[in-house]
Amino acid sequence: MPRANTPSQPETYTMAKAKKQPRPKAETPKGFRDYFGADVTERQAMLAEIAAVYHRYGFDALESAAVETVEALGKFLPDVDRPNAGVFAWQEGEEEGKGDWLALRYDLTAPLARVYAQHRNDLPTPYRRYAMGPVWRNEKPGPGRYRQFYQCDADTVGAPSVAADAEICAMLCDALEAVGIPRGDYVVRVNNRKVLEGVLDFAGLEPESPARADVMRTMDKFDKVGKQGVMELLTFGRNDQSGAVIPGVGLPDIQAAKIAQYLTQESVPPREDRADAHGELNERRLSSMRAAVGDSPTGKEGVAELEEIARLLKAQGYGEDRVVIDSSVVRGLGYYTGPVFEAELTFEILDEKGRARQFGSVAGGGRYDDLVKRFTGQAVPATGVSIGVDRLLAALREKGRIGGEAQGPVVVTVMDRARMAEYQTMVAELRDAGIRAEVYLGNPKNFGNQLKYADKRGAPVAIIAGSDEFAQGIVQIKDLVLGAKIAETATLEEWQERPSQFEVPRDGMVAKVQEILGSQR
Amino acid sequence: MPRANTPSQPETYTMAKAKKQPRPKAETPKGFRDYFGADVTERQAMLAEIAAVYHRYGFDALESAAVETVEALGKFLPDVDRPNAGVFAWQEGEEEGKGDWLALRYDLTAPLARVYAQHRNDLPTPYRRYAMGPVWRNEKPGPGRYRQFYQCDADTVGAPSVAADAEICAMLCDALEAVGIPRGDYVVRVNNRKVLEGVLDFAGLEPESPARADVMRTMDKFDKVGKQGVMELLTFGRNDQSGAVIPGVGLPDIQAAKIAQYLTQESVPPREDRADAHGELNERRLSSMRAAVGDSPTGKEGVAELEEIARLLKAQGYGEDRVVIDSSVVRGLGYYTGPVFEAELTFEILDEKGRARQFGSVAGGGRYDDLVKRFTGQAVPATGVSIGVDRLLAALREKGRIGGEAQGPVVVTVMDRARMAEYQTMVAELRDAGIRAEVYLGNPKNFGNQLKYADKRGAPVAIIAGSDEFAQGIVQIKDLVLGAKIAETATLEEWQERPSQFEVPRDGMVAKVQEILGSQR
Repeated sequence: MPRANTPSQPETYTMAKAKKQPRPKAETPKGFRDYFGADVTERQAMLAEIAAVYHRYGFDALESAAVETVEALGKFLPDVDRPNAGVFAWQEGEEEGKGDWLALRYDLTAPLARVYAQHRNDLPTPYRRYAMGPVWRNEKPGPGRYRQFYQCDADTVGAPSVAADAEICAMLCDALEAVGIPRGDYVVRVNNRKVLEGVLDFAGLEPESPARADVMRTMDKFDKVGKQGVMELLTFGRNDQSGAVIPGVGLPDIQAAKIAQYLTQESVPPREDRADAHGELNERRLSSMRAAVGDSPTGKEGVAELEEIARLLKAQGYGEDRVVIDSSVVRGLGYYTGPVFEAELTFEILDEKGRARQFGSVAGGGRYDDLVKRFTGQAVPATGVSIGVDRLLAALREKGRIGGEAQGPVVVTVMDRARMAEYQTMVAELRDAGIRAEVYLGNPKNFGNQLKYADKRGAPVAIIAGSDEFAQGIVQIKDLVLGAKIAETATLEEWQERPSQFEVPRDGMVAKVQEILGSQR
Repeated sequence: MPRANTPSQPETYTMAKAKKQPRPKAETPKGFRDYFGADVTERQAMLAEIAAVYHRYGFDALESAAVETVEALGKFLPDVDRPNAGVFAWQEGEEEGKGDWLALRYDLTAPLARVYAQHRNDLPTPYRRYAMGPVWRNEKPGPGRYRQFYQCDADTVGAPSVAADAEICAMLCDALEAVGIPRGDYVVRVNNRKVLEGVLDFAGLEPESPARADVMRTMDKFDKVGKQGVMELLTFGRNDQSGAVIPGVGLPDIQAAKIAQYLTQESVPPREDRADAHGELNERRLSSMRAAVGDSPTGKEGVAELEEIARLLKAQGYGEDRVVIDSSVVRGLGYYTGPVFEAELTFEILDEKGRARQFGSVAGGGRYDDLVKRFTGQAVPATGVSIGVDRLLAALREKGRIGGEAQGPVVVTVMDRARMAEYQTMVAELRDAGIRAEVYLGNPKNFGNQLKYADKRGAPVAIIAGSDEFAQGIVQIKDLVLGAKIAETATLEEWQERPSQFEVPRDGMVAKVQEILGSQR
């Protein structure tokens, strides 16, 4: 593609019109992308299925604007230490330094807290809401890592009871099954930040110790670095694969060992074990947790909450084959204050090196009781879940649930430009019968180009009518799917026996096309 | 709502954590808004109907990112004379003055031109695509004027023939009817920029005169200021209602008179006339146009194109009751180069002062042959339409097609907190039967609050079960719709005859709720 070597300053656009402007580059900004055809419609269809589940649970739709004030958004991005990184922000007004700072939302939770604080007198309490839409992160883009992506959240604001957390977990199971993840191929793992705090209490960390957040972040790395890695990171530090030294948190060995001990309790068991567990697995895990939090009041409260969640879910039919207590769930976000959960897909896929591995996490959430308080000064309990839309779509593609190309339209070719009105009438008839159809609107001179176009469009059928056909009152109908199959595999005899082109009376066109489309299914 | 007097600089968020931070304001930025419940789902449903029509016409979905480079967007906003106004823009990178300038898209057409230029080797030609989503304008907000709003576009790129324009007009009719605007309540008005250019040629303006754009903008104001107003604006200027002087274009009277003459040809006739016109109306209008462009070659070409569009549409059954040639259509955007069209709703509504007026325009578009050329240097013909989503939704509400509140969930109240698992089981049964249902998850102490909550939610039914009911194996079911009706209008006898609360066995709960919901429809 020819590209002018264009300076990217916007000043080029303020030049006098007479001056010849360099050509702009036809490129998305780095880290952004375009979605075409089925990539758009399959996502929409998946989100509609999820929305139907959320709606059945009594959740109401909410759509806030993409833009918020920076002060309303606050800084709750995970793993962002630099104060101005992470968001796309700009200042209002024409004179610099005068207006409010605005930013694109980086998630759907921060806007929910603002919405609830702003409209709380008009909203029901508890307020159950779902939201779906793009969010933006001003991060360094990388392979598969985009700066705009979809989230799909459901949250309950104003419900202090863990029944709200249990409901979210049940709803998450229903949503995954609704989009096509079969029972047995996923598990929702539940833990409680209070249990984690209890473990730190019991390990001897001071209640207000600033090391607590670092310790939790380290625990979250257990999946990646294992027990030995966590021990190193909790104490003196560790050399990573590139040889760089990652500094440790600096805990004494005895504290670190207690924490590592907690992490190496039984983790998610293989699928078969879960199906056989009949409630014993959760009971065993709760026992281990009771031991791990010792006499920490916070820890004990956390274990009791998990017990209640498991009991409520079991009563509704959500057993250990779908929701399990799991001590290894930590969640990166700092604002969680109670139960935390994660949905993991347990079927195996091949990674880029051909090794089998579990698909992994597609959703996560938990209880965060302080986000609304930022605005109002009053604590408002809240809990919710966020589904990673792109990852879930990728999973459905892996499982062959969706995928692929959407079917192209029937293409009415143009043999005689003067008869455009008649070709238009043909497509109008096809559409009236509910068939996706279009007239070829490019330059009709080269008929080969029209068939190439039909191929590129994935057209199932082409209609051909020139002056001979019009004179005889007929049309030619080409079954392009059959034609392609025959061209690939058939012998000459088969080819002669199974014609892929049919001559039908003009008024039999729609019926014949319907017949062919039916046979292609 | 208590609000801290907060400075709005983001620096407040970089302070040390120990320092007490002032509370942020819980407000949308000026000109942005939140959409709740039915406002979200009704728009989604309407867009899905429109997408189905576009899809049937062979158009493929495209979703580009909200963010583009400023250079790719270019400056094609209507009525924006200041070079940096109109868009929300910021510079990439942490150091000022180093990175690319990025901006939120202000429409869906500029991104399409970029997408087509970038991916043209992979896309079919012609490329028919539809796109739906928010766009952003950095304008002064006002009543009903927001800085984020939805557009819903369909465009054909790479089709030089006016058959593509005719197709868009037909599709627009189908889309309006699909969402619930009945035939007869709308009209698609079609004109051609070439005819307008021809009129200016014939009035004696030079081909390259910079006054041409001003004259067109003035012609576009005919609806608002009338013939006399246009004459003044084309010549010496005009005092507006506030007394301010609007400068004129400065044409000689004789030129201005010719233009005003063209504008005062018959405009859209009342509905009855159109239905009776049987093709004569378009013929009359084309004749007037032929006279108005005189011997201008551009003008004659424009008239011939309109003739062809009318002929193609008529062949497909789109007569003057749906699509009419109309000399008064101009369209504000500067980039149109051929046919232009506008969909107008012709039913009357009462304005804020109680006067009847036509609802007005809900969609518009036209042919723009130069937008892709900016990137590639090669002219690529394109035509398309944009539906004003919010205005069309408002129209559907006016007509009573949609609106209102979505039905709330069945609310299972909590009489006994210890039985939460049993209440959860009830909602699970209701949901399994496809019924929207939820447990009350607020503080259950005050039962009156639970019924107030059910009312706020628009709940059709409440379920009540306390220790007595559990002991007897029954539940109480309250028909809240009937209850509200009785409370409003019934006499004591009616109230006794038609109870709105029913006692049913626990295992008959789902069936009774289904029966009540059925009776409410």
